[in-house]
Amino acid sequence: MSAFAPLQADDVAIATIRTLSVDVVGKANSGHPGAPMGMAPVTHVLFSRFLNANPKNSKWFNRDRFVLSNGCALQYVTLHLLGYQLSMDDLKAFRQLDSKTPGHPEAGHTDGIEVTTGPLGQGFGNGVGLAIAQAHLAAVYNKDGFDLINNFTYVFCGDGCLMEGVASEAASLAGHLQLGNLIVIYDDNHISIDGDTNVAFTENVEQRFSSYGWQVLHVDDGDNDLKGMYNAIAEARQEKSKPTIIRLRTTIGYGSKQQGTHGVHGAPLKADDIEALKSRFGFAPDQKFHVPQETYDLYADFGKRGAALEAEWNSLLAAYGQKYPKEHAELTRRISGKLPEGWEKNLPVYTPADAAQASRKLSEIVLTSIIPSLPDLIGGSADLTGSNLTKVKGSVDFQPPSTGLGTYAGTYIRYGVREHGMAAIANGLAAYGAVVPFVATFLNFVSYASGAVRLSALSGHQVIWVATHDSIGLGEDGPTHQPVETGIALRATPNLAFWRPADGNETSAAYYVALESKKTPSVLSLSRQNLPNLEGSSLQKAARGGYVLHEEDNEDLTIVSSGSEVSIAVEAAAKLKAQGIKTRIVSLPCWLVFDQQDEEYRLSVLRSGAPILSLEASSTAGWQKYSHEQFGLPAWGASGPYQKVYEKFGITGSNIAVVGKKVVDFYKPRGKVESPLVKAFHL
Amino acid sequence: MSAFAPLQADDVAIATIRTLSVDVVGKANSGHPGAPMGMAPVTHVLFSRFLNANPKNSKWFNRDRFVLSNGCALQYVTLHLLGYQLSMDDLKAFRQLDSKTPGHPEAGHTDGIEVTTGPLGQGFGNGVGLAIAQAHLAAVYNKDGFDLINNFTYVFCGDGCLMEGVASEAASLAGHLQLGNLIVIYDDNHISIDGDTNVAFTENVEQRFSSYGWQVLHVDDGDNDLKGMYNAIAEARQEKSKPTIIRLRTTIGYGSKQQGTHGVHGAPLKADDIEALKSRFGFAPDQKFHVPQETYDLYADFGKRGAALEAEWNSLLAAYGQKYPKEHAELTRRISGKLPEGWEKNLPVYTPADAAQASRKLSEIVLTSIIPSLPDLIGGSADLTGSNLTKVKGSVDFQPPSTGLGTYAGTYIRYGVREHGMAAIANGLAAYGAVVPFVATFLNFVSYASGAVRLSALSGHQVIWVATHDSIGLGEDGPTHQPVETGIALRATPNLAFWRPADGNETSAAYYVALESKKTPSVLSLSRQNLPNLEGSSLQKAARGGYVLHEEDNEDLTIVSSGSEVSIAVEAAAKLKAQGIKTRIVSLPCWLVFDQQDEEYRLSVLRSGAPILSLEASSTAGWQKYSHEQFGLPAWGASGPYQKVYEKFGITGSNIAVVGKKVVDFYKPRGKVESPLVKAFHL
Ligand SMILES: [Ca+2]
Ligand SMILES: [Ca+2]
Repeated sequence: MSAFAPLQADDVAIATIRTLSVDVVGKANSGHPGAPMGMAPVTHVLFSRFLNANPKNSKWFNRDRFVLSNGCALQYVTLHLLGYQLSMDDLKAFRQLDSKTPGHPEAGHTDGIEVTTGPLGQGFGNGVGLAIAQAHLAAVYNKDGFDLINNFTYVFCGDGCLMEGVASEAASLAGHLQLGNLIVIYDDNHISIDGDTNVAFTENVEQRFSSYGWQVLHVDDGDNDLKGMYNAIAEARQEKSKPTIIRLRTTIGYGSKQQGTHGVHGAPLKADDIEALKSRFGFAPDQKFHVPQETYDLYADFGKRGAALEAEWNSLLAAYGQKYPKEHAELTRRISGKLPEGWEKNLPVYTPADAAQASRKLSEIVLTSIIPSLPDLIGGSADLTGSNLTKVKGSVDFQPPSTGLGTYAGTYIRYGVREHGMAAIANGLAAYGAVVPFVATFLNFVSYASGAVRLSALSGHQVIWVATHDSIGLGEDGPTHQPVETGIALRATPNLAFWRPADGNETSAAYYVALESKKTPSVLSLSRQNLPNLEGSSLQKAARGGYVLHEEDNEDLTIVSSGSEVSIAVEAAAKLKAQGIKTRIVSLPCWLVFDQQDEEYRLSVLRSGAPILSLEASSTAGWQKYSHEQFGLPAWGASGPYQKVYEKFGITGSNIAVVGKKVVDFYKPRGKVESPLVKAFHL
Repeated sequence: MSAFAPLQADDVAIATIRTLSVDVVGKANSGHPGAPMGMAPVTHVLFSRFLNANPKNSKWFNRDRFVLSNGCALQYVTLHLLGYQLSMDDLKAFRQLDSKTPGHPEAGHTDGIEVTTGPLGQGFGNGVGLAIAQAHLAAVYNKDGFDLINNFTYVFCGDGCLMEGVASEAASLAGHLQLGNLIVIYDDNHISIDGDTNVAFTENVEQRFSSYGWQVLHVDDGDNDLKGMYNAIAEARQEKSKPTIIRLRTTIGYGSKQQGTHGVHGAPLKADDIEALKSRFGFAPDQKFHVPQETYDLYADFGKRGAALEAEWNSLLAAYGQKYPKEHAELTRRISGKLPEGWEKNLPVYTPADAAQASRKLSEIVLTSIIPSLPDLIGGSADLTGSNLTKVKGSVDFQPPSTGLGTYAGTYIRYGVREHGMAAIANGLAAYGAVVPFVATFLNFVSYASGAVRLSALSGHQVIWVATHDSIGLGEDGPTHQPVETGIALRATPNLAFWRPADGNETSAAYYVALESKKTPSVLSLSRQNLPNLEGSSLQKAARGGYVLHEEDNEDLTIVSSGSEVSIAVEAAAKLKAQGIKTRIVSLPCWLVFDQQDEEYRLSVLRSGAPILSLEASSTAGWQKYSHEQFGLPAWGASGPYQKVYEKFGITGSNIAVVGKKVVDFYKPRGKVESPLVKAFHL
């Protein structure tokens, strides 16, 4: 561990970060100046002395990952100084429409941003995911003399993040997993929005992290003690079998007249305060957005160091390719985000002669079929492995070798009962690259993770949810476990593919599209109960999100349905046929994907002519978009054997036939019925 | 602290709980036998020696509260033995349709169940809420010689609950709040569904709870050491300034051939195992659902003790009424769940001449107006007090007196950044009775608490959410903070009133209905930005959930809208009028309440004749139920000053006028348009 060597330019650089942050927030007249001002010193120490990254290639694979969990302007300022694709004009456009600098950092939107932060606690969970990905890929691909994957993950977080349960969950798992390359710096500034943290947050954070199995360090003067910060980070890097948290006591808004109070937390500083602050740091009080050339020069040096490191790494990778061509090919393919050629040929297909099975079981069969050729898949369940059926035979646990329960090369993650943490971790895994994370729980408990799920979608993280027990079909566990509102919540989330496959072919289709959609998370809503394989289903058809499962000319009625209710619709159609009522069946496993099809196709599936009745064992909310009439649950589900629960709510072939007849009779006097997709305008 | 006195009948009673649980799960052929078998001894110790409750009156106000956070058959067995309204036939109907014994205990459904449990972690949070309510009411109403409110809250929980972030959040706050009457018994059985807890849960739980400021005790032999359990609970009751957790090492499925393995966690025991188990405990191996008379007699004695305690308490309350008539009247009114006569007269009303204000500000004005006469209201924010505007002037923090920051009589709870914990705590507060909890955060972060919100609705807990910053109208914070899918998720949740008031009168209406709805939670979705007071709005009209804000005869178009977009619809209507297009405006602040109105009224509001266009700055999902055409956000929001964001998405008077014209032109050739509420059937 080398000693801290102060640089002449350190103080100016720190002052630059502070004043620039103040100007950025000031011009936007919106944002959080206090945290960047307080965290400027440690940011400088980390970026100047430790962080391995190449600003000219923000995608260099072995870069250190940096996450600002309490996402704010600080990150933009740093990226600009380092020479990422973020100009001074971009900083001046902070929080303005269509800028590269939205209110909170968004992955995929701004060069150099690893994960989307701002919603508290998420970045912490993402950091754990980033560290897991590193540990896993290192275990799989590193070889003697080829320490290819060895980056650190650095997370900055504040009190708010540490109060959030999602961070607690992720922290407990990170300790269990002994993630030595994860380093969290906790901005202990005693201030949150409500004022002094002693109004609500008086726990002993150090002791808590010790209890999770973390190394705990602290630096008492985070405002000035650069050497202390340097030594703490260096010490954290030495500890290889525990994640580290460094509690850094800082003064929020350091340099402001209001420093140390919540007055500097969430609102711009006043003009006179800004001027005084600049004078105090030796800057011209009336000069805005000023970066001294020496600071630019200094940061350009860090950028050059990063570029050199990348060049070195590229040579190492090339040499690795000579010695380990197979591993090299696989790793580089994975880094590129491409799936192996022909992987989809392993997806099972079915005919109606095949036995009825639960779609959770069909999901297990898919995983079993594709995992051998898809080492990219890494995932697990929130303590429902035997119910979600996510652990395929022969897979090894991702565990610290010292536990004797698995290895870091293992691909099956035991998340524990930590849905929200799991989801945030999965976002981190996806953000790291070269892995495709899947996670699992009951569909109802995906909502425990809503905060992270919407960020998967906003960030374009390919996370696949195996969400089983997806309706009243789970039976006895009852309404506490039976989702009603979950489906529409997920369907209404932009860029989230909610799949509810009806049979084997549709389950394969859901996996096919989910795996090919590199920028879209998917939730696979799967049944506990057995489902027959349907006449008319195919992987290709289902992959369009919706299709005609059963066609009739001049139909009297179309029933549109999803998942476990499609076969009930088929039963109803047979009964209606016996009464002379011709009923088409449309299966609509994924609204998002169906909406992406061309209009002609969509109008051919949900065509004008006859009324359309939707059927799903769930809230009917949202189905009005695709149908004229909606059948579903009037409110909560019920506890009992599942067939009886279905009967209670009239979701049976016989009752749906009765309902269908009612619909036909109701619309008959109304003449030709127009498709619900025919609209005056489209958004 | 008295010493443990063993009873002859203890062992038989414990064996009865064990065997009865096994039979209950066995007959249902579904459920979790292991935990009841492992927790039988401590259950017996608690109920026989400590728990003050009267099975003949499960609503006795000063009863000890018991929460089985890992909700399962154990609770039904205990309630039956104690003589609650739960017969042996009810036990035999475990997990059967329409029984009193659904898969997981549901508050309001079964006599003696305090809160709904099963979804892990929730009961733990509820317990913290129950303990806060006790501490608060004690501080307000207890007097010298009148220790009226002094019950304990006992929570049983397992590993799963402690892994959940919601429990971590609640535990940290409980420690801060020094809740001495809260006692948690942690069933440390080393087993969860995935097998041994060492696959995912190796943190030091005792150290973690110490870090939160809890008293931590443990009992090493939870299978047999009744004295140890007794002493630990007695010691917990002695500690008045800290909550206590007792780590109890038990053997899951104690007595089964598979004891101590996850084989007994979630599936019934095999027939031969059940027989062997019964023999081992001295029961006839082939006798099912057997309760020895001595056990019934013993539990009847505990019931009698409870009845006597209640009688004693009723006398104390009567004497209190003599000495403190005012407090007595208020307390008994609150216990009854009635609000004070005429409280609603304090609700502010507005005219269009009143200044435009943000509905979060209007909410603050309501709270300021009603809180002086409504001491029942106790609440706070998840560290967004200054943004949610939930702390009215002069209110005192609910804090341990030793902090110097408030008192237990205070009504303002500083929740910290703990949305999920806050929501679970609020459910506990509501379940306790005599308080009406409100909670607050940004609307977007209500989804962090989804797991608890749906249980508010399922359990019928009156929890009021002050959910501000409810759309792109929050502006600069950007898409990470702008809800899109949140509204429909909440609207699709049964028995949850999602209110989106458009102005002052509608905000008062939302509070009016929310406070009068004793069995329904409400989420008040409130703007950050100013909203004009509308011509045509009134508290009475808005209290019906939807109404005609602006009427026109023979209209060409109706625009239905909510919240901050209603005034934009009004602008659009004026522009359309200038073009000769007559536009009605319907304000629909609450779908749930509107749906409860009679059909005639609903059809008069959303009437047949002209097309109906919906307008909301959110996902359009679900609006198809009330309109023919839908305008909203195509996907995510954007970061920028809010007016610019509204412009970007075309949600302005001018653009909506253009859209409205398009709709009118589209429907003109189609003749008379039928109301979307006219349907072939209703669920
Ligand atoms: Ca802070
Ligand atoms: Ca357990």
